Amino acid sequence: MAGPLRRRLPLLPLLLLAAGGLRAAERSGGSSSAMEELATEKEAEESHRQDSVSLLTFILLLTLTILTIWLFKHRRVRFLHETGLAMIYGLIVGVILRYGTPSTSGHDKPFSCSQEDRPFTTLLVNVSGKFFEYTLKGEISPGKIHNVEQNDMLRKVTFDPEVFFNILLPPIIFHAGYSLKKRHFFRNLGSILAYAFLGTAVSCFIIGNLMYGVVKLMKLVGQLSDKFYYTDCLLFGAIISATDPVTVLAIFNELHADVDLYALLFGESVLNDAVAIVLSSSIVAYQPTGENTHAFDAAAFFKSVGVFLGIFSGSFMMGAVTGVVTALVTKFTKLHCFPLLETALFFLMSWSTFLLAEACGFTGVVAVLFCGITQAHYTYNNLSVESRSRTKQLFEVLHFLAENFIFSYMGLALFTFQKHIFSPVFIIGAFVAIFLGRAAHIYPLSFLLNLGRRHKISWSFQHMMMFSGLRGAMAFALAIRDTATYSHQMMFSTTLLIVFFTVWIVGGGTTPMLSWLNIRVGVDPDQDPPPTNDSFQVLQGDGQDSARRNRTKQESAWLFRLWYSFDHNYLKPILTHSGPPLTTTLPSWCGLIARCLTSPQVYDNQEQLREEDSDFILNDGDLTVTYGDTTITANGSSGPHTATTNLDSRRTKSSSEEALEHDLGAADHEVTSRGTRLVFPLEYNA
Amino acid sequence: MAGPLRRRLPLLPLLLLAAGGLRAAERSGGSSSAMEELATEKEAEESHRQDSVSLLTFILLLTLTILTIWLFKHRRVRFLHETGLAMIYGLIVGVILRYGTPSTSGHDKPFSCSQEDRPFTTLLVNVSGKFFEYTLKGEISPGKIHNVEQNDMLRKVTFDPEVFFNILLPPIIFHAGYSLKKRHFFRNLGSILAYAFLGTAVSCFIIGNLMYGVVKLMKLVGQLSDKFYYTDCLLFGAIISATDPVTVLAIFNELHADVDLYALLFGESVLNDAVAIVLSSSIVAYQPTGENTHAFDAAAFFKSVGVFLGIFSGSFMMGAVTGVVTALVTKFTKLHCFPLLETALFFLMSWSTFLLAEACGFTGVVAVLFCGITQAHYTYNNLSVESRSRTKQLFEVLHFLAENFIFSYMGLALFTFQKHIFSPVFIIGAFVAIFLGRAAHIYPLSFLLNLGRRHKISWSFQHMMMFSGLRGAMAFALAIRDTATYSHQMMFSTTLLIVFFTVWIVGGGTTPMLSWLNIRVGVDPDQDPPPTNDSFQVLQGDGQDSARRNRTKQESAWLFRLWYSFDHNYLKPILTHSGPPLTTTLPSWCGLIARCLTSPQVYDNQEQLREEDSDFILNDGDLTVTYGDTTITANGSSGPHTATTNLDSRRTKSSSEEALEHDLGAADHEVTSRGTRLVFPLEYNA
Repeated sequence: MAGPLRRRLPLLPLLLLAAGGLRAAERSGGSSSAMEELATEKEAEESHRQDSVSLLTFILLLTLTILTIWLFKHRRVRFLHETGLAMIYGLIVGVILRYGTPSTSGHDKPFSCSQEDRPFTTLLVNVSGKFFEYTLKGEISPGKIHNVEQNDMLRKVTFDPEVFFNILLPPIIFHAGYSLKKRHFFRNLGSILAYAFLGTAVSCFIIGNLMYGVVKLMKLVGQLSDKFYYTDCLLFGAIISATDPVTVLAIFNELHADVDLYALLFGESVLNDAVAIVLSSSIVAYQPTGENTHAFDAAAFFKSVGVFLGIFSGSFMMGAVTGVVTALVTKFTKLHCFPLLETALFFLMSWSTFLLAEACGFTGVVAVLFCGITQAHYTYNNLSVESRSRTKQLFEVLHFLAENFIFSYMGLALFTFQKHIFSPVFIIGAFVAIFLGRAAHIYPLSFLLNLGRRHKISWSFQHMMMFSGLRGAMAFALAIRDTATYSHQMMFSTTLLIVFFTVWIVGGGTTPMLSWLNIRVGVDPDQDPPPTNDSFQVLQGDGQDSARRNRTKQESAWLFRLWYSFDHNYLKPILTHSGPPLTTTLPSWCGLIARCLTSPQVYDNQEQLREEDSDFILNDGDLTVTYGDTTITANGSSGPHTATTNLDSRRTKSSSEEALEHDLGAADHEVTSRGTRLVFPLEYNA
Repeated sequence: MAGPLRRRLPLLPLLLLAAGGLRAAERSGGSSSAMEELATEKEAEESHRQDSVSLLTFILLLTLTILTIWLFKHRRVRFLHETGLAMIYGLIVGVILRYGTPSTSGHDKPFSCSQEDRPFTTLLVNVSGKFFEYTLKGEISPGKIHNVEQNDMLRKVTFDPEVFFNILLPPIIFHAGYSLKKRHFFRNLGSILAYAFLGTAVSCFIIGNLMYGVVKLMKLVGQLSDKFYYTDCLLFGAIISATDPVTVLAIFNELHADVDLYALLFGESVLNDAVAIVLSSSIVAYQPTGENTHAFDAAAFFKSVGVFLGIFSGSFMMGAVTGVVTALVTKFTKLHCFPLLETALFFLMSWSTFLLAEACGFTGVVAVLFCGITQAHYTYNNLSVESRSRTKQLFEVLHFLAENFIFSYMGLALFTFQKHIFSPVFIIGAFVAIFLGRAAHIYPLSFLLNLGRRHKISWSFQHMMMFSGLRGAMAFALAIRDTATYSHQMMFSTTLLIVFFTVWIVGGGTTPMLSWLNIRVGVDPDQDPPPTNDSFQVLQGDGQDSARRNRTKQESAWLFRLWYSFDHNYLKPILTHSGPPLTTTLPSWCGLIARCLTSPQVYDNQEQLREEDSDFILNDGDLTVTYGDTTITANGSSGPHTATTNLDSRRTKSSSEEALEHDLGAADHEVTSRGTRLVFPLEYNA
């Protein structure tokens, strides 16, 4: 990721890769000045103790949150989600730290940023003939020099923002990718991509422009005391466009609300996080071109667009590549006999995606998302049963801890962050802007999408999506990443408030909203949605085939179908133990390679494969029973082709389309067991 | 932990708790000096990239190790253990980094430590009216100032030693405690404690004194170029006394070697790690007293002993307390309905032990060990089935990764650590000393223990224990903790070599050794050891009861029996859902409290409890089948009391002794179902 966002010291590697080779100096005093040394030692010990205490604070916070979550779940309280709860506890601790600890020096006015001399990041100091290396820790505003001591506790609980990007977000995002309910996700892929890419871009620009208006207004009224550029407004638009409906989705899960709505919301929020990260990097990359920055510059604009596309596709590739490599490794070694090794490998490979992307200058978090999706789609099928549950559970725990940590920290940050700038006009403007920004992409996009969709996105779904646009961990992490300037501080404070209110209000309002909008709950996720008035077509009798064709045609664009057929015929058999044997799908002159790459299991025991290919990651412990992959049963009972063995083209086409709808594994078996090559009826689109 | 070991900056909190409040300065240059800023930005980006690359190096190393381990396991190769393998790969990468990267400036002579002026740890620098805070990174020897750049990659792969203590060791040690096979552990508790405490102390002092002789010799021969005090020798003794027979135990596990030998070795190595840590801290704490340090001082000596006892018991208490709190929380909340919450809580509480101990000035790693044991003994019984496997698997993965990481790092460090001092005399002396040190505690202690033990520790067991004294992660972590002075550098280099050779040679020699010593393999771990010639007593007919009594008397001291009865009658029922109801064990005037504390399950479904109380943690995935808790079956088939329901005292005593031997859950059921209070026949000892 380019741009000034990377300007501060990255922390994760710092943590792990400190300059061990040079660490000796502090201790090299020897015994010559024992008393002095003892004093430093005591100091260091004291500092270590304080660090431990502040980490303990967070752990106790999380423990308290967990216990209260349990109490709430136990009593079936739904008006406050666990994340909201974590924030409240964080708030309380923040207040205690702020006002309960020995007096701090009040708020100094944030220092201005106009000095010409930039401090060095590294100093070499000559102390009586010896050279010592010092690294820049940060600036201290003059008024605070003498009370650094008193602020210590507040400083201790303030994390380096890179912790969020390098430690806390990756497991959250990976888990999101890994637990995508793929069947419903892929069925709605077109819409999800539209919402995520177009929607986020639209939202970003609308919010950015509205906020620029607000900023202009503030300047008129005299509420603005420092610079606030157009690019800052756009950056705010990008930051605040990252939706995070954890609360809503948790309630959906609990109530078993409509699966398509779930898929739309989940898919949108997952991908839009990625889009928001890359978008904000691109906007930041736009800034420093030329001497008169902050004015529109076509070249710089296109450069930014290029950066966006480059980072996004690069990160996507990284994620996909490591996922594919892991799939190949797990397929061609018999690692599944040793689940511990397998899990460790899986974990390491997934982590390496992040590092690889960062090393190549892409965005680790985005790469990790696509890695998660790839791992779920291919590698998961190669894992042993034990590793499947291990990896799921491992990342579930990591995700849970990281998420609740971020939300507690948010609560804490409201009081402990020392450079808040709350501007009522800006805040009110921001709330209006995010409302309008969301409205301006949900409704028009849904209208456009409905032109092409068979299962229309109903009004109630649209309202629900509109309502579910709450902001969470990603918006916070993006906002805290850079809080150096006046404008960024104001954006950060506003983001914090927006997160608070959307999480509390939307989180509490989801259940009433669902019933008010008449969205059905208690749905078996493996059933297709029931006929609704606006989209039902009779799927019986002679009209069945044309209806199916019609449906497939409308729901999945040719690009997707092409991809599906490629995935099913080549990628799946190469990367996993499932799918049709390559010997049947590849041209005959590739026979040798095909035979090498095809797993012997594909020929041997297709029965077992169908089970292994369950291809389904549980999202939440609550859903263990409901979300089992019963696709085959559902499919079998729909029965248009179960007993068919003739190879006439009409039948083959029908079942291939069926397979498309069910993403994978469901109808595959029938096709592959006949040994035919799955060919899509592309002529229908011509 | 007191003493100079704490003198350098602790890294874990550094990682997580960076001074976020002051992090703005670097970026505060604004747009005024855009070009210059861009340059810094590029620099920071470059550094971040390098960090990612070096972490990637480690991940690739681990991946490679995992794949090779698989290959070895697959082909049943046993001459090289995974840890040995990790070291070899580390070595190779170290060689590449050392000689493959652009020329570094060769070895400068390590700087002497005699300057009078200690550098400040924090600098405040005034740059054109603004104050910046710098922290001391380390000293640069004058010759290296200009080629810091070239050494970059080597520096990048060199970790802060505190990473080992604060990040990598805790999961390893916790896992060791959590996976203690308790039944065999407790049966041999006396011997294990003797080996761990007395043995380590003896070994430490013998090695220390021998090494002091070696150092004197070196001084005579002129091989010593700097100071090497007696306390340094003792510290080396403490460091190198931490045995770590992972390799041996892995092979034991694989071959299902004798369980008592396993318990002795495992228990000894786990506890002796704790003893070695605290011992080295105490020795370090001894050093800086008075002006003429390094001379014997009785007051200082007793202070050190006090420090040892204080730190050890304090850490023990911390671990036990958090374990008990976790047990209470999991018992009295119905958290087990939500395995994710439960696992998260378990993880957080276990982690908080570490922080709590560090915050109170005790040793986190030691606290974590006892926390692990407590968690396994109590909390584990309260967890849901899913959480049991989750927690086990979570810590298993963490342990595996951390351990292999440390061993890879060791391989790497041999070439990338820049201040090695290899002294052939010292190294040979050290090898001889550790051999003698181990011999001097294994054989005499075994002799003494055999005086009191019924199951004698046979000669072959003693030889095997002697042979298994290899050094591993803990010795390395202790040695790398302080490499500031000449003596410590020499000790570090020597430790590294000792680890290498013991791991490779002993690891490769375990299987031949086992067969050479005629130690039986393929044992069912839940069977009592078969009669061996030197310890067999006929346990049949009328002699049975007295034999049993005799056995109990000999094997478990009254202290242990007192503890067992207290644990069984009070702690287990209070902390878990198992054991006899408190209403029967507590005096009648405690009726109300007893009723509150006793879990209703104890009365309700005792059948189920027996299963829940399996109290058994699997150590290795390989053993899943073999190590299931079949105690009840084994016990039932031995049949002296299965059909007994009469309450005559003879029978009760017999079964209580039986229960003692099986630690828990096995014979408990019969006792508790009769509703009697388990009273130990203390009169037999009087």
